[in-house]
Amino acid sequence: MNCEIIAVGTELLLGDIVNTNAQYISQRLSALGLDVYYQTVVGDNLDRLVEALKIASNRADIIITTGGLGPTDDDLTKIGIAKALSVEMTLDELSLEKIKNYFERSNRPMPSINERQAYIPLGSRAVENNNGTAPGIIGEYGSKIYIALPGPPKEMKPMFEESIVPYLRQKSKYTIKSRTLKVIGIGESALQEKLGDIMMNQTNPTIALYAKEGEVHIRITAKEEDAVKADYKIKEVENKINNMLGKDIYGYDGDTLESVVNDILQKEHKTISFAESCTGGMISSRFTDIPNASISFLNGIVCYSNEAKINILGVKRETIEEHGAVSMETAEEMAIGVRKISNTDIGLSITGIAGPSGGTESKPVGLCYIGIVIDNQIKVYSFIFNGNRAKIRWLASTKALDILRRTILETKE
Amino acid sequence: MNCEIIAVGTELLLGDIVNTNAQYISQRLSALGLDVYYQTVVGDNLDRLVEALKIASNRADIIITTGGLGPTDDDLTKIGIAKALSVEMTLDELSLEKIKNYFERSNRPMPSINERQAYIPLGSRAVENNNGTAPGIIGEYGSKIYIALPGPPKEMKPMFEESIVPYLRQKSKYTIKSRTLKVIGIGESALQEKLGDIMMNQTNPTIALYAKEGEVHIRITAKEEDAVKADYKIKEVENKINNMLGKDIYGYDGDTLESVVNDILQKEHKTISFAESCTGGMISSRFTDIPNASISFLNGIVCYSNEAKINILGVKRETIEEHGAVSMETAEEMAIGVRKISNTDIGLSITGIAGPSGGTESKPVGLCYIGIVIDNQIKVYSFIFNGNRAKIRWLASTKALDILRRTILETKE
Repeated sequence: MNCEIIAVGTELLLGDIVNTNAQYISQRLSALGLDVYYQTVVGDNLDRLVEALKIASNRADIIITTGGLGPTDDDLTKIGIAKALSVEMTLDELSLEKIKNYFERSNRPMPSINERQAYIPLGSRAVENNNGTAPGIIGEYGSKIYIALPGPPKEMKPMFEESIVPYLRQKSKYTIKSRTLKVIGIGESALQEKLGDIMMNQTNPTIALYAKEGEVHIRITAKEEDAVKADYKIKEVENKINNMLGKDIYGYDGDTLESVVNDILQKEHKTISFAESCTGGMISSRFTDIPNASISFLNGIVCYSNEAKINILGVKRETIEEHGAVSMETAEEMAIGVRKISNTDIGLSITGIAGPSGGTESKPVGLCYIGIVIDNQIKVYSFIFNGNRAKIRWLASTKALDILRRTILETKE
Repeated sequence: MNCEIIAVGTELLLGDIVNTNAQYISQRLSALGLDVYYQTVVGDNLDRLVEALKIASNRADIIITTGGLGPTDDDLTKIGIAKALSVEMTLDELSLEKIKNYFERSNRPMPSINERQAYIPLGSRAVENNNGTAPGIIGEYGSKIYIALPGPPKEMKPMFEESIVPYLRQKSKYTIKSRTLKVIGIGESALQEKLGDIMMNQTNPTIALYAKEGEVHIRITAKEEDAVKADYKIKEVENKINNMLGKDIYGYDGDTLESVVNDILQKEHKTISFAESCTGGMISSRFTDIPNASISFLNGIVCYSNEAKINILGVKRETIEEHGAVSMETAEEMAIGVRKISNTDIGLSITGIAGPSGGTESKPVGLCYIGIVIDNQIKVYSFIFNGNRAKIRWLASTKALDILRRTILETKE
């Protein structure tokens, strides 16, 4: 069974946004053992949309659209599908109820145009949207399957994972199993060299590397009719890689660095506080993305000014005057200070130069000091990160979280 | 004249990479006054590529491909074009010379397979590649124009700018100008209703709405032979919308909410501190994305625990016990407290329930209180945001930044 992804939206054709939805869905379909032969982008124009749908139905078994499910005149995807299939639109009462509830919960009256979102092509069923008003649809028409998903990734992705993946799994005779090992602290090229022998001539399971900002993911994928056999094949390769990489693998599959650090902290019954300068709250913000972060994370200080470092964290004025706000010494006193005022087991600090200005020859843009206090031990690490301001801040916050992870694991031993 | 962009490469269909080339070219074509009606992605498969080219030639005047110009068996774009047009491939001596020179300059022998890159469809001309070995092509066949560009952005972009833009400029007699108005505090549907009269029957300039997370963008686009006339037409519509929406428009074009708030604070010589609970540092992190945020932003407290609210911000224990950590009263004391310990002109606080757990009937998931102290005034606002944890945190941090913006603008008046 092969698929075509059709993204609907004039903003894509104008280049206002990049088609990350097509990438996301392609990646997930590939993991499910489904081939994608074409991706298409078409604007908010009914005739051209219908044309694209007709072409797709001639060459694909499964047609997945994204976008065009909003309430305005521009949102034409479901009407386009109905027209391409020559079926009527029909009101889905349950969807209307849900849209009404959505507005009620936020204490706003439902604009009358939102009612349009509850109409679906006859013969399709609505797919619930837990993050917006636009329901998706799944429709089987002859041998063809039509799936329509909302455009905003924050609505599309949860809907795809919760409703479309389970549906598509039933359609494939092979079981595709995959396992992702998430690696931090080794670059993509170095990892490729290190795993060269294992990766060479490996066809089932396959091993692929994906470079992410600050980390690399190793995906092992096995395709078998029998799920147990697929799992076994993956486990064999996984064990080999685990033996080679050890603690450089921070997690698996759905794990994020934040969730892994949070799990370790909770398991070890440790509490944590952060003192951030150059990352400006990003470490706290990333960490608190995790539900229940409040069990281990008690407090963060975004001490952006020197006065905040001195008055709130108790960094000595002389330390900053003598060594600078970006220094090993300041990082050390920040970590000690934040642990003290927050009354936590661990204090983590970061101070650096995120740029684009503020760098000097001896302290270039990208220089960061990361301090950590745990029990009676204090350590300060220094790094120079490459990239623009956003990238430096991201890499620095990633490194800080990874130092936290490794430190707790080592303290445990 | 309308264009279709065809990206060639199996890695796109597997979702290994995102199609940024299509975005880049679309954006540039739009600025040149050329419409893009379709973008297509096809893999490294000759039959499907030829099929995609034939479909494109039925619906577009200009067909621009990216990728598939390399030296390996997988690189099929030029052969595909030749086949779709039923013309022969022919050796371009000048290109062969340049490829040879390219290898000479890097002191490497030319692998024999690279010779293939010098072959082009009969009737096309080669376009020089100053950043790689693959020449591009431009071919005019009847009323149709075929342009083939390399896939790597570092080769594609310079070739597009140096050779394709000048070529296409001659083909377009229009100038396209556009202006984006960024709106916060009104949903897409409500905005559409409000602007209904202005948008109705508006063809040049056109007005389009784009919903973003927590905001809506209005884009006004004019197409004229004369650039001054296009600017004038945009200004007319912009003024009308400005009169209707007033402060709901927070910025224009490249502005972000963060950059606008930062600009206003700096212009008014005001300093700011944040006390965040449910957003966990996201407001500080977003604000410090802006270079030079340190001029106005002095300090942030991520008071995730009650103890941090009490010990660091000076929130009264009785306030939390009586009204709860998520309450108007706690938000008020947090804002007062963070301003005091940070010694800033303004203190902004937020406390709420980001979920997924922690909600009750009287205090549901999504409930947030935002407090702001400026001069001798204190205000606390309450909202209920819809969505998952990530969305609630994003919407809450956006609302807090917008309240900050509106408060300073009102104080100024």
